[in-house]
Formats: sequence, C-alpha cells, structure tokens
Amino acid sequence: MKILTDRELKEASLSQLNEYCEGLREEILRTVSRCGGHLSSNLGAVELTVALHRVFDFPRDKIVFDVGHQCYTHKLLSGRAEMFHTLRKRGGISGFPKREESEYDCYNTGHAGTAISAALGIAEARDLKGEDYNVIALIGDGAFNNGLVYEALNSVKILHSRVLIILNDNGMSISPTVGGMHEILEEVKTDGSDVRVFERFGLRYSGIADGNNMEEILGALESAKQMLKTGSVLLHVTTKKGCGYPFSENAPMETHGVSPAGAEKKEYSAALGEELVALAEKDERIVAVTAAMTDSLGLRPFFERFPGRGFDVGICEEHAAVLCASMAAEGLKPYYAIYSTFLQRAFDEIVLDVCAQKLPVTFCIDRAGVSGADGETHQGVFDLSFLAMIPNLTVAIPKDIGEFRAMLRKSADYPMPLAIRYPREGTEGPFSDIEIGKFEVLHSTMSDIVLLAAGERCLKIAEEVRLKALEKGWELSLVNARFLRPLDEELLLSLRQKYIFTLEDNALIGGLGDAVARFYRTRGAEKTIKNFGIADAFVPHGKPCELMREFGLDAEKILKAVEEIYARG
Amino acid sequence: MKILTDRELKEASLSQLNEYCEGLREEILRTVSRCGGHLSSNLGAVELTVALHRVFDFPRDKIVFDVGHQCYTHKLLSGRAEMFHTLRKRGGISGFPKREESEYDCYNTGHAGTAISAALGIAEARDLKGEDYNVIALIGDGAFNNGLVYEALNSVKILHSRVLIILNDNGMSISPTVGGMHEILEEVKTDGSDVRVFERFGLRYSGIADGNNMEEILGALESAKQMLKTGSVLLHVTTKKGCGYPFSENAPMETHGVSPAGAEKKEYSAALGEELVALAEKDERIVAVTAAMTDSLGLRPFFERFPGRGFDVGICEEHAAVLCASMAAEGLKPYYAIYSTFLQRAFDEIVLDVCAQKLPVTFCIDRAGVSGADGETHQGVFDLSFLAMIPNLTVAIPKDIGEFRAMLRKSADYPMPLAIRYPREGTEGPFSDIEIGKFEVLHSTMSDIVLLAAGERCLKIAEEVRLKALEKGWELSLVNARFLRPLDEELLLSLRQKYIFTLEDNALIGGLGDAVARFYRTRGAEKTIKNFGIADAFVPHGKPCELMREFGLDAEKILKAVEEIYARG
Repeated sequence: MKILTDRELKEASLSQLNEYCEGLREEILRTVSRCGGHLSSNLGAVELTVALHRVFDFPRDKIVFDVGHQCYTHKLLSGRAEMFHTLRKRGGISGFPKREESEYDCYNTGHAGTAISAALGIAEARDLKGEDYNVIALIGDGAFNNGLVYEALNSVKILHSRVLIILNDNGMSISPTVGGMHEILEEVKTDGSDVRVFERFGLRYSGIADGNNMEEILGALESAKQMLKTGSVLLHVTTKKGCGYPFSENAPMETHGVSPAGAEKKEYSAALGEELVALAEKDERIVAVTAAMTDSLGLRPFFERFPGRGFDVGICEEHAAVLCASMAAEGLKPYYAIYSTFLQRAFDEIVLDVCAQKLPVTFCIDRAGVSGADGETHQGVFDLSFLAMIPNLTVAIPKDIGEFRAMLRKSADYPMPLAIRYPREGTEGPFSDIEIGKFEVLHSTMSDIVLLAAGERCLKIAEEVRLKALEKGWELSLVNARFLRPLDEELLLSLRQKYIFTLEDNALIGGLGDAVARFYRTRGAEKTIKNFGIADAFVPHGKPCELMREFGLDAEKILKAVEEIYARG
Repeated sequence: MKILTDRELKEASLSQLNEYCEGLREEILRTVSRCGGHLSSNLGAVELTVALHRVFDFPRDKIVFDVGHQCYTHKLLSGRAEMFHTLRKRGGISGFPKREESEYDCYNTGHAGTAISAALGIAEARDLKGEDYNVIALIGDGAFNNGLVYEALNSVKILHSRVLIILNDNGMSISPTVGGMHEILEEVKTDGSDVRVFERFGLRYSGIADGNNMEEILGALESAKQMLKTGSVLLHVTTKKGCGYPFSENAPMETHGVSPAGAEKKEYSAALGEELVALAEKDERIVAVTAAMTDSLGLRPFFERFPGRGFDVGICEEHAAVLCASMAAEGLKPYYAIYSTFLQRAFDEIVLDVCAQKLPVTFCIDRAGVSGADGETHQGVFDLSFLAMIPNLTVAIPKDIGEFRAMLRKSADYPMPLAIRYPREGTEGPFSDIEIGKFEVLHSTMSDIVLLAAGERCLKIAEEVRLKALEKGWELSLVNARFLRPLDEELLLSLRQKYIFTLEDNALIGGLGDAVARFYRTRGAEKTIKNFGIADAFVPHGKPCELMREFGLDAEKILKAVEEIYARG
C-alpha cells in the first residue's frame, strides 16, 4: 500500500484519513495472518496512531508504547512499511518497539507498565538538557493495573516534567481487565464527573474520546497537546479491540496473539488445565492464580469449574506471588501459572515471600526457553539461572507433556516451593510416575560420553545427536536431567563416563551446565564437562529452532564435539 | 518489665495502658541502644500496637506488619519479652516478623509493600476454609508508595475477602515520604472530605485517628472492627515517628536504623556521595536516583548540591530502574544507588530496560554480601548470581573504598550498563586507576595455589589465610578478582598455578566461583578449582563476620584445604 509522507498525512482530508486507516488495517491483517503477531490490540489502535502522527511531530516528539502490542501502525507510518512483511522473522522487523530499528522508536518495551516511567525519564532528560518537544506514553487499561504505573504516577509531582499519558481503554488486557482501577475507569466513562483521582497525582484529565473515530480523536489530541504546554495530561481514549475486523471484534482474546496459519501442536497449557481440575476435584486446598492470562496459560477449565478458587489479579506479577505465598501460609495449595520472562517481575517475591518462608507454592512456568517470534523480551532463557540460586526451591523440567502431568500430580502433596518450567508446545508422551530429584536414564551404553539434557527440546536435540553419532559407530548415553534443584547426585556419581555433555535451552551462565559442573567439582570427580545452551546474549525474534541453533544448541556442533573426543581416542 | 497477659491487657484501665506504653517504650529504647535496630518507627507504633492487642484476639486474628519496622511492641506482647535482649543477635529473636518464632507472626516481611497482598491471601484462605477471624495489614505511608500496594488494592474487589488495612501515616519512610499518594494523604488529613479514591478500590475509609493517643486509637480500632464485619476497611492513623523519645522525634531519619553504641567505621556510601558530587560538577549528564534512601546511601550531598538532578521517587525500586533507563536513553548518565536485596525488586527492569537496551546506567549496590543483624531479607548474598547471567552488564567488586572511587570515576564515561557492589563499611585504601575487566595481582609467588578473592571482606579473609599459610611455610598467590563480568581472561589464562581458590561473600551458586570454573572449563584448562562462598541457605540475623564463618567463608576451613593440597605433595 502507499504510505503517506509526514507532510501528506498532515494535509490529508478527513475522508482520506479514514480511507488510509482502512488500508493500514488490511495491511496489518494480511501480514499478521502470514507472520503471526498481536492482532486485535493493533487493529484497535489504527485511527489513534494515525491521528498521533498527524498531530505530533515524530521523531522529534517521542512516544513510548507500553508493552508494544499497539505499535504496528506506528511502524508502518515510520519508514518500515516495505519491511513490514518481515514482521517477527529473523533479521526482519520486531513486533515490539526497537530503538535499533528506527529513530521513531525511542524506548524498547515488551513487559507491561513501563511506559509512564519511561516517558517521565525522557521528559526529565529533555528538561535538564533544555530541549523542547512532547513526550507521550500510550498505555492500555490492562497494563494500567501494573504496580509500575502507580509508582510512576506517584512521581509525576516529584519530577515536575510534562508528559501526555494516553490511556487506551479497550476493557481488555489479554483477558478482560479486572480490578478496582478498572471499575474506576468504567465509572469515569459512564459518569465522567469523578476524575479527581488522576488530578491528585498531578495529571489534568482530558475526557473521553472515541479512539476509533478519526474526527473525535484528532480533536482530542489537539486539545491535549495544548494542555500539555502547561502540565501533564491524562487523555482517556476508548477503542474497540480488533476494530474493523468482525471476527476479531467478537473474539478479542482469541485474536490477541495470532499464530501464522498452519501452526498446530499440542500445548503444555492444555495439560495444566486438565491436571489442575482433576487434582482440585480431590483436594480442596488447591487454588490457581494468574496475572491476566487465564486462557494463554490453560487455566480456563479450572476457572470455570472452580470459580471461587481461580484468581486473575490483572497484570500484577508481584502481587500474585505474594497472594500465593500468603494463601500457602494458611494451608492452601496455590499454583501460580505465568510465562517465564514475566516471572522475572516477581523475582524478589519468589526469593523472600515463597522460598525464605518455605511455602508450598507451585510455579507453572510456561514459554520457558527460546520462545520465538516475540523476541528479546519474551525469551524464557534466564529462568533456570535466576531460580538456581534460590534456597529451598525445587526446579523441575519435564521431558514431555506426560512427564509434566506426572510432576503436577506429584506437586499436590509436595510440601515445599516448586517450579516446573516448560515450553509452549510439545508431545504428550506416556505417563509414568516420577520421584523428586531423580533423573531418568534413557539410553545407557558403555560409551565414554553421556548427554544430560533438560526438557523436551533439548532431549530431542540430544536424541538427534545420539542417532547421528550411532550412524558413525559411536555410542552415546542419554539422560533426562529433569531436575535442576536438587540434582540427582546419586546418578551423577554413578556415571562411569569421563565426558559429560549438558544441554539446556537456558543461558549457559547459571543453569544446568554450571550446576552439574559445580557438583562434580565439589566432589573432586575427574570429569570433562561440556555445556551446550544459550550464549551470553539477548536472543532476538525468529523461529525457536533457528534461534536455538544460532545461539548455541546446534546438533552439528555437539556432534563435532563428540567426534573430537572419539577421534582423539 | 512486667508484660501483661492478654487478659490483663484487655482489662486494664486507660491510665494503666498509658503507663504500660511508657514501660514498653523504655524497653525498646534500652534494647535498641544495645543491640541496634529500627528505633523511631517502633517508638511511634507503641500505643497503636497495644491497642491492637487489646481490641483484637491474636493469634486467632492475624496481623501482617509491612516491612516489619514496627513489630517490636508486638514481639514484647506476644511471649518474646524475655528473649527481647537477644534482638538481632545470632540465635536470638529477629528484628522482623518470623513465623518460625511465634504463632503470633503469621507472615514474614522485610521488603516494602507486601502486607496488603498477604492479608488478602490470608483472608481468602480463611474464607475458602470456612473459618472466621480478622485479618489486618499494618502499613506505613512510606511503603504505601510501592507498586505492590496498588496491585493489592486493585484486588480488593476481585477477591471479595474482608481485610482491615491500617495505614500508619507518620509522613516518613526512611526519608520523608514523597509523591502523589503522599499528597493525597496529606489532603485527606487536613480536609477529610475526599476519601473516594479508597472507596473506589472497595475500602471503606475509617477516618483519621491519632495513633499515639490511647483513648482515640482504641475507639478507632473498635469502630473499624465493627465495620470489618461487612467489608474491607482502611483505617487511617497518624503517628509520630520516634514518639516519646525527644532525640528521635527530632531526628527520625537519623534514628530510623540505629547501630549498637560504639560501632563506627568508614562507609562506602560517604565515598559515593563525595565522588558523585565531584563527577557531576564536571559532567552535566550525571543524575542520581534513589528509592527513599537518600541518606543511607550517601546521596545527601549530591541532592543538596544538585537539587534538580537528584531524584528520590519513594519506595519504588522498579520505577526507579525504568526512570534511569529512559534518562540514559536520552543521553543522561544516571546512577541508581540501592541496597543489594532491594535491587531484587527491579530484576526484570535491569534485564530488559537497562541491559537489553545497552543503556549506560550505573547501579551502586550497597550492603552487598552478608549484611548482618537484619537477617534473611537484608542479606545481599544473591546479587552476583542474579547479575551474572545478564548480557551486556559489567559487574565490579571493589577491594576497598579507594578502588570504589576509582570505579566510579571510570564509570562516568563508560558507555554500557555497570553494577558496582560493595559492603556497608570498609577501609579507604589508596586511589589508583583501574581498567574495566582487569584483575589485580596482590601477591605473586611460585606456589601451586592462587586465591582469587572478590571484595574487601573476602580479600581480608584471603590475606588472613595467606599469612597463616606463610607461617607454616606455604606460599600462596593472591589476586583481587574485581570484576565478575567480564572476567580477566588474560590473567586467568596466565596463571601457572594448578589450584585456584575463589572467595566471594555471595551465594556459591551462580557467583564468581562458578564463573571462574566455567571459564577454565570452556578453555579446557586443567585446573583444580575450589570455591568458597555462602552456602545454599537463607542467612539469618547475626554479626556479619560470624555469619560469614558459619555459612562458608571460614579462614580455618580454607587453610585446611590449603594444607590438604600441600600435605598431598
């Protein structure tokens, strides 16, 4: 499609703008249906973004997109239309704002709630440097629940720097938005009178505008821009998630994140839902907690079956962790399901609230390992490292969905903190009981080399290496290293092999490889240990299998290391 | 002093209660002046706590103390008066609530903002189990700034469980409370009309009571207890920090945390303030950020000299990190000073906002390592581990205050994220320039063993070991391993010694020892590596030197390991 220059955009008529939005919407739909991506949030923000580009002067003015699920139109308008077909592909443009990509992107996001803080920081820098431009934070009502927002609002009066906060209120995060702040916003929308809560924080409230109505949103932005000259402003905009695409309008949750057509595998999350329901039927202590991701994490069946025992607390990862710890302190058995990278937000609470108190909270950590097209902010490659150091915590890594089920069943009576980390998709596998802290020998040979692999994807790579080695006449042993904490010390000590290879889809620093090496070192065992895992780098967007190969989990490379040992004799 | 039984307390006259409070206050003063501890916050909460014990039935009713700086009176009233002289000593009672210590303590705290979440979780468990008791969160206005509070308030309507939140408003955190919420509270206090902001979150506001006036606070609690029968309540109480002790009333910041008489050493924080002021005189880009600890971190001189460039954002560790990242994105040079354990709160923001964006924020991490009498929640023994895995981050560990100054001066033009971690106290040491990523050889000998020690305290232990070994005729080499990231690879490769000992006052899992071992493993170097550091456990309260010895940094043990090697030949 033809992208208007900044000048053309500023001179276009209202009907031209509306037509333009339709074209942009089609472009987004076409690209997302092919590349996958965040659909409904982006569709909802087309008019708002076009209006922003008309009223403000980017990149001189700066805009921070909270989370970044609404930045596609901005990318199309800022010189990236020709690259847009490469969305979320390795080497192509990111699905999130990226400073490396364009001067129109001033701050990278991906996790919820950072935009207001970042806008305040940018505005403060502007003022200290004596410069003059507008700073805008665009944030959805879902992210508006996050504690960072409150911390930032609390700073508006401390910092004295003028920012425009645009609250894009579509009533949804990934799940429908919940909580007290949501109800305040709903009341403001229907009543309009009570906006003093924002004024107290130093923001002038600039009333409701329909963000999908070009004329209305242009007027609202012009007016907010005037108000911004003398102080910070909160512009409250309503939009319709999925706007303009009836299927998405009616199913905004299902079309929040869209996979490219044809991608269908079994998901671990479905097993989580099934197992938790079955466990909870027998055990009244079981409760489930999520930070606004009931469906993506597979908890819907649990929430429907036990509405009083499932808690969606909004995008509040820290609070969710404390809630679990305190419910466990009073005898309940909480399961906290969350994506790996989002759990980073609750690190302190895992350490102190859960583990220092030895409370039996089970963390169900989805999207662990390299998770693909969302890029740096969504790769779950640090979890083994930041969990490895925490005393009292057990860390499990199932080899397939069957073993995941076995771990969940074991967890119900496990009296200590437990973390189970798994990728999005996998294979079902047969169910067999497991023992906490015990590895599983999958192939035992008289060879000199044993592969210790953690998790389904690494075991698959290890099996590939084993079979290729076998073709060359080299036998390898293979062990399912399904616990990071505790390690199976007995099994490790019993291994006669001199060469230990570890495989993990986690950072090489601080994960399984380090733990195994540390164990042998402490025991003074004479082993040669080679670790394979993710390099010391942020992993960008791309296909998981390609990224794993590129960043360190390459079967060929491992095979070469095998070859070197056998060649040496 | 004589402690009243629960029954006596409930039957005492008003004048008896007032007299009782004076006795408790004296007991606290006496004990804190001997053992150290949190003085002014505890002095302010004496009447409030006595009144709570009179109106409610602990331990059947549950109270969560946010942070825990106000729990001394509660400890005295709940069977721990005879042990009170052991406050904060190894084996004695903790300065914070501890479930392990008493059934009157239902939830452990230490970091700000968790109490409302925890109270909600406890109340939810109560309701699900069909039990009936009162749940109270006692939180100060300083902690009330933390994002967790907003996340929890947002859940009051989601969870439907009744809790009593007592906001103990003394206008202070450690520094004076700041920000929008503080101004709302101030307005509520003077005006009283505008409390709808709390009602919106599902809390009935129960007006202002003077928490140091026994009659008034008793009435307020009785009334709140009645209201609690039908819904959640926010009781707003004002107290005077340091109340009843004129010196403390007039200097609440200086007497927030008190060291036992006689403890005086040079603090790293003083050097931070001096150096930052000197750097900022020459470099306009430099700004400093703190989460409510301007004085404890040594930033007061900077804030006074450059009032527009120092930011105290309240107890908002995450927001402070994003603020730093965004200011750096616009060309400023932010220094974020914070205690080691509190930095755990900003883990996700260090990873994504600062390091994934490669922004030149300098983290000045105080109270790193075993920090003593505050116990589990304040021991900075995980920072090297959770920083080690983060790509793009440089991690420095100065050997003394002189080297700390050198690192700070180096940091001003360092274009990447940098973390400098140091203990509270140390020795000045001469100033000499350093190079990023370069270790320093302190003693080079022809011996078979080299000690790699990180930070002042470990270098001191290493030197003790070296001298004792020398007495026995064994020479040891000693290296100041002042960077965890990057390691000094050149130096490590040049070491001829077969035995490498590492010393760090950090968890053994994931710190320097693992990094050095990983390096040699990757290079296939034939070294025998022995790591000394903190064991895989939460370190309780006690004296740092004792705790370090007990949890793994024991000169005798290290000497024994030396002896074994030399005895072996």
